Amino acid sequence: MAVYTEINDEELAHFVAQYDIGAVLACKGIAEGVENTNYLLRTEKGAYILTLYEKRVKREDLPFFIELMKHLSARGVTCPTPIRRRDGEVLGQLAGRPAAMVSFLEGIWIKRPGVEHCGAVGRALAAMHNAALDFPMRRPNALSLAGWQALAAQAEPRADSVLPGLAAAIAGELAFHEAHWPRDLPAGVIHADLFPDNVFFLRGRLSGLIDFYFACTDLLAYDVAICLNAWCFETDHAYNATKGRALLAGYRAVRPLSAPELEALPVLARGSALRFMLTRLVDWLNVPAGALVKPKDPLEYWKKLRFHQHVASVAEYGFEP
Amino acid sequence: MAVYTEINDEELAHFVAQYDIGAVLACKGIAEGVENTNYLLRTEKGAYILTLYEKRVKREDLPFFIELMKHLSARGVTCPTPIRRRDGEVLGQLAGRPAAMVSFLEGIWIKRPGVEHCGAVGRALAAMHNAALDFPMRRPNALSLAGWQALAAQAEPRADSVLPGLAAAIAGELAFHEAHWPRDLPAGVIHADLFPDNVFFLRGRLSGLIDFYFACTDLLAYDVAICLNAWCFETDHAYNATKGRALLAGYRAVRPLSAPELEALPVLARGSALRFMLTRLVDWLNVPAGALVKPKDPLEYWKKLRFHQHVASVAEYGFEP
Repeated sequence: MAVYTEINDEELAHFVAQYDIGAVLACKGIAEGVENTNYLLRTEKGAYILTLYEKRVKREDLPFFIELMKHLSARGVTCPTPIRRRDGEVLGQLAGRPAAMVSFLEGIWIKRPGVEHCGAVGRALAAMHNAALDFPMRRPNALSLAGWQALAAQAEPRADSVLPGLAAAIAGELAFHEAHWPRDLPAGVIHADLFPDNVFFLRGRLSGLIDFYFACTDLLAYDVAICLNAWCFETDHAYNATKGRALLAGYRAVRPLSAPELEALPVLARGSALRFMLTRLVDWLNVPAGALVKPKDPLEYWKKLRFHQHVASVAEYGFEP
Repeated sequence: MAVYTEINDEELAHFVAQYDIGAVLACKGIAEGVENTNYLLRTEKGAYILTLYEKRVKREDLPFFIELMKHLSARGVTCPTPIRRRDGEVLGQLAGRPAAMVSFLEGIWIKRPGVEHCGAVGRALAAMHNAALDFPMRRPNALSLAGWQALAAQAEPRADSVLPGLAAAIAGELAFHEAHWPRDLPAGVIHADLFPDNVFFLRGRLSGLIDFYFACTDLLAYDVAICLNAWCFETDHAYNATKGRALLAGYRAVRPLSAPELEALPVLARGSALRFMLTRLVDWLNVPAGALVKPKDPLEYWKKLRFHQHVASVAEYGFEP
């Protein structure tokens, strides 16, 4: 949530002149996106988001993200649409960073989602999975099991400073997932980060999905598990089965979940909680001096993980056959 | 440059419903303004800036700022116009903070101002001074001589850690201004912070002035001196007399500067440099852990101050009778 890279008016005017969107009327750095710098741009032709990709996003991954947004937009998923330059390209360079311009989506994100929002996000997630079925590019999930092991190794020496016993508990979780992570479920493009701040609503209806910069190829049901963690826990860390029921029902109304996918949900949700706990833990332990971004509490996800450890079947998530 | 206060969708909708501006279509925290939290709001009726006043702005000063913007707007100065609620009020409450909505100004600020921008800012400053001549409210400048003494006392114990000898040099400057600060020059409402990021340009023309939250009643020529410091030095800290000439000529084309005002400019510019050096120095020495805002270098203004110490007459600023 920061503007990492400042741009001056001359380089901005030069960059924008490569597009057929008229002259710049206003340009504001916005507090959106943790990984990249985003400007809200108004030109004579409309509103756009100008994104400068900072070093945490790998340059070689950018074509996957850009092409995915183009693919999803073309299939009716409301998401940012990359704007082509006059030369047909969508990826440019600005202030020494790779940069792209996408359409601006109206809507605001919901700070305290209700049951109806969970139903809507389930439907939108399934629609996104369906729309990406014929997307030809692949991007392995860097934050799957192997990635978790690397994160755990980074955090290990100081994990117990956050919570005594945490390092050993993480090692136990990694061993559990080594043994139990499902391998044969339907795979495809997953959003992988569909938290409330990445879903816009307008007049009570879901109006768009944003931030595809963790999207990758992985198990579709894993994306559902990420959403259960992101949308269905209360602020006191209690799981809300009514929200879970709405999210699962919404998803299944658009894309059915198979029996093996449903059976795997507790493991997938537990793994998803581990993944977010680990990235937050590493960030927590490595806050640079003068950081512009406040790290998120890793223990929130540890509490969610502990809930999933004791889930015996998907019925506990609110699932109704 | 940060979003200090988050607002949730429900309190936002409730707040906006007090105005006749339609429903919220989008709301983005923007990286603008160091003192307050600003959101760029789009509603069915247009674009607005929603400002939440953080603790560095005194609540009792808000009516002065709000009424000043209304006054200036009504007299043709392009600046944010406070939006009235249905009940006629302009100051409300949001997320526990005083809050107001103002019109959105198109334009972008110029990172590297040229001579023509300096001329335009001189004209706009004079026009603002003229437009505020009949503004009935008064607000003493909290950052005038007495305020500098308080800042110097705060910085004194650690000033030499920034530059050896700085504490004694500051004490010398304060004594100089005690003896030489002009008292009988024309006074009125000054902007007091008209740096390049507070001046918007559109298609090469000045399109508006923003951020009136340091505005106060003080010597008009002091505002000119602040602008000489803010607009007419190069990044290597060298004074650019061509820019100064343009700024002074622009100002005088709209509001003449009297002989005593011109004679006082070197002292006023030296005092202005001291004022910005002192506030930056105090911020520099008091960066809180996990700060969202990077402090600005106080020594930039110390170098400017040292230039003004050796200015014998206004001719050195580029002034041409």
